[in-house]
Amino acid sequence: MFVLRKKSKKSSARVGILKTARIEAHTPTFMPIATKGAVKSLSSADLRSLGAEIILSNTYHQIIRPGVKILKKAGGLHKFMGWNKLILTDSGGFQVFSLSKIRKILPQGVEFRSHLDGEKIFLTPKKSLEAQEAIGSDIRMVLDVCPPYSSSRREIERAVELTLKWASESVKFKRPNFLLFGIVQGSVYKDLRLSCARDLVEMDFDGYAIGGLAVGESFERALEVLDYTAQILPLSKPRYMMGVGYPEQIVEAVKKGIDMFDCVIPTREARHGKLYFFSNQDNDSLKKGFYKTIPIYSSKFAKDFSPINRASNVSELRVLTKAYLNHLFRTKEPLAIRLATLNNVEFYLNLMRKIRRNISKGKI
Amino acid sequence: MFVLRKKSKKSSARVGILKTARIEAHTPTFMPIATKGAVKSLSSADLRSLGAEIILSNTYHQIIRPGVKILKKAGGLHKFMGWNKLILTDSGGFQVFSLSKIRKILPQGVEFRSHLDGEKIFLTPKKSLEAQEAIGSDIRMVLDVCPPYSSSRREIERAVELTLKWASESVKFKRPNFLLFGIVQGSVYKDLRLSCARDLVEMDFDGYAIGGLAVGESFERALEVLDYTAQILPLSKPRYMMGVGYPEQIVEAVKKGIDMFDCVIPTREARHGKLYFFSNQDNDSLKKGFYKTIPIYSSKFAKDFSPINRASNVSELRVLTKAYLNHLFRTKEPLAIRLATLNNVEFYLNLMRKIRRNISKGKI
Repeated sequence: MFVLRKKSKKSSARVGILKTARIEAHTPTFMPIATKGAVKSLSSADLRSLGAEIILSNTYHQIIRPGVKILKKAGGLHKFMGWNKLILTDSGGFQVFSLSKIRKILPQGVEFRSHLDGEKIFLTPKKSLEAQEAIGSDIRMVLDVCPPYSSSRREIERAVELTLKWASESVKFKRPNFLLFGIVQGSVYKDLRLSCARDLVEMDFDGYAIGGLAVGESFERALEVLDYTAQILPLSKPRYMMGVGYPEQIVEAVKKGIDMFDCVIPTREARHGKLYFFSNQDNDSLKKGFYKTIPIYSSKFAKDFSPINRASNVSELRVLTKAYLNHLFRTKEPLAIRLATLNNVEFYLNLMRKIRRNISKGKI
Repeated sequence: MFVLRKKSKKSSARVGILKTARIEAHTPTFMPIATKGAVKSLSSADLRSLGAEIILSNTYHQIIRPGVKILKKAGGLHKFMGWNKLILTDSGGFQVFSLSKIRKILPQGVEFRSHLDGEKIFLTPKKSLEAQEAIGSDIRMVLDVCPPYSSSRREIERAVELTLKWASESVKFKRPNFLLFGIVQGSVYKDLRLSCARDLVEMDFDGYAIGGLAVGESFERALEVLDYTAQILPLSKPRYMMGVGYPEQIVEAVKKGIDMFDCVIPTREARHGKLYFFSNQDNDSLKKGFYKTIPIYSSKFAKDFSPINRASNVSELRVLTKAYLNHLFRTKEPLAIRLATLNNVEFYLNLMRKIRRNISKGKI
């Protein structure tokens, strides 16, 4: 369930709490991505100590490895990875469309070949939810069709039709022990987005995701879509913008009423040595320039003996220097990526805390 | 300094304490290897929580990257890597002989090209100690000549001669703020080993390393060398067998009176998914079969939901299962290697604790 705590008067931003029988997460929230059952370089204990309240895992990858059978034997992904907070799973659809070169969309589902061993897999709305049941996630997504940005209007129309057909088949599997989200598609076509959103709201999902954004359109365009789409969605249900984004994008999307985010940026950019910091640790400002990034592998940090992150709760980031992290990146020590990942995931979680405080204080 | 606490009556094994002004380490001890200033996948905080008391770093790698200049600016390797316990450094000689294809041994030192950028470097006994001074290690090795196992007796003789010449030039740099070790060479030639050891003892080093073993000879042969070499070395000085080894080899070497060990086995084999465990956690037995290894990537662990290591002090190793670690290895998640490394380094440190208890109880 979702408890709306406060709505901003200045924008559509709101603070709330995502709740299941077991546990809760404060929104707006950011979900680090544990694609294959681990956030790259981090353990669940690391995520807990960073203060993460919810993570995302990808059904497509889980189906392929370790597979539904092993997940069932393990007693679900929470037990498997030692994580007792919330898990959201996608439907697997997005990866089918982005990773699998050979795929066929049929009215019943989508047929594809595993990118690993070429095995043929037929994913239906029901099968996706069965896989998510094996994973045991707290928040589950219905199977949708997410066409590439280059698609024609006709193709987007068909994608919305099928998305709605699959949503109506999926909603029957709503159960009180998890939240089931419908996904709004429609690319940048306002009429398609609105009708898709209306039909999904009619079906009464536990929450709504806005998919098919951040796939090639400008972010201004995406904000427009959020703006008119979110207005259709019920205030009492959580809203999730999939796959976004940079810190300033998250702030803007929050203003449009979005509660949940996931993105590979903090972890992927950590692997490339790009570190995120707040420009000013002492206040919650989210004005232009509120954060900066540094390329830690750059030679200018080779002699920078200031702490990696003076304000971090991770002792290593306070004690060790930028020069040392620069050295670790240059010598390809695996510790380099771990430290950078800890820094960036902490940054994103702190960003959400700042956002929540800003909304609570009426500043967003 | 070195304090001998107890000598076994059954063998040459002994327990003692390595001491510097700052800190101490209990012997027999094992030194995890931080080649480039980090034990692969672990931070210094991780090493501390595993109970490591001393680590080894390689002067050759430190000279090349980050280089003496940056280490000096950093205030030494302890500060650079955030490690406040003991550091031992080798002389750099071994890597010159093993990594550098182009090298020339001269009476004054050894000329080689960096394996990274081909830069010409001339390493002398004095320069090696200057580099170790920049590193600021607590225990330092003199530059020696470590010829390949395939060398002729004549080549070994020359290596011993030059090793002794360099040792006599190095011993002048003995200072109270670190321990300086001479290195006994001589391959498997008893007369060469004995005369080398006698001459080094005459020079009065703070400790003695036995080098040029585990380079191709059988371990029985190495034990013979240890046996007669250690008898020449003063009881009051620590003895270090370089680059060894498997757990049962360490136990045998301890019986010959060795106090210090280093080896890549726990970290390198962790990267290949080979995990070390004691067969019986409840006692200190070091009898045949006292430990076992498992190849965690093997399919037989895909459904093994027992803890990775029930007896570990690392919470992740107690909570997470072998099936999960198997999955992490199969999906190439970097967390896999970190968990395996934590397991194996902890095993080696526990091995040394068991050895010390066995000696203290008169069982070795």
